[in-house]
Amino acid sequence: MRQKMNESAEPIPEKVEFTPIGYVENDYLEPGHNEEIYGKVSKIILRKDLEDGLYRVDELEKLYILFYFSKSKGYKLIHRRHYDGEMSGVFASRSPFRPNGIGLTIVEFLKVEGNVLYVKGLDAINGTPVLDIKPYIKKLEEKTEESKD
Amino acid sequence: MRQKMNESAEPIPEKVEFTPIGYVENDYLEPGHNEEIYGKVSKIILRKDLEDGLYRVDELEKLYILFYFSKSKGYKLIHRRHYDGEMSGVFASRSPFRPNGIGLTIVEFLKVEGNVLYVKGLDAINGTPVLDIKPYIKKLEEKTEESKD
Repeated sequence: MRQKMNESAEPIPEKVEFTPIGYVENDYLEPGHNEEIYGKVSKIILRKDLEDGLYRVDELEKLYILFYFSKSKGYKLIHRRHYDGEMSGVFASRSPFRPNGIGLTIVEFLKVEGNVLYVKGLDAINGTPVLDIKPYIKKLEEKTEESKD
Repeated sequence: MRQKMNESAEPIPEKVEFTPIGYVENDYLEPGHNEEIYGKVSKIILRKDLEDGLYRVDELEKLYILFYFSKSKGYKLIHRRHYDGEMSGVFASRSPFRPNGIGLTIVEFLKVEGNVLYVKGLDAINGTPVLDIKPYIKKLEEKTEESKD
């Protein structure tokens, strides 16, 4: 992408760099669509230096986990999407083969032990780098719905 | 983070690099909490080479927009969180000051014109780099809820 100027007079960065905050530990060793994964428990092993960032995460029922599709190389702009078998653009799908391979899943919080977070329903394989954890709060998510009219 | 080995025998990467897929254009020039932002229209100017990735995005009512908090430098592991004024860890909050500054907002789809996507409810300021666009499909999001028991 060419550097573009906008009104805030800062160029759009060519590259953005992140450092994983931890990684996934579970018994999914190979990628694949598998409905049973939504019932499985995964551990997120957080970097020790970030452990304090989990304070009060135990008060939440659900979390967003953002992770990196480290096994998915390249992308297709148009492909057959999994959930309904229709052709669609990559931005109208959850394909792991996307320009920026960021995965996003809502999981159920189970427990925290030190720097280890236990969650249910994470569809990421063992060893997946985790980029961020955010609260999923239904009331806040629905804000857009309320303002719809 | 030290390189760690896991069962899949691949080291967790030290750094993960993304290239913005486009940027936000709206009339929010400075960051700040502002409830009225949820009613505002923003444009997402997608890179021209990614335009095909928007195919059938017009069939969706809501989208996740993942973006980069380009103006938020550094992070605090424990801070006072905005939505209820309580102290919490950064992973139990939506703070823009996080180890990886990735923002996530559910927006209402309005229209597409070529490589320009019009959405409502995006709380990102003008010029914000966009990292990904994903469908928000209530039925799929609720999968975790159904599997809860």
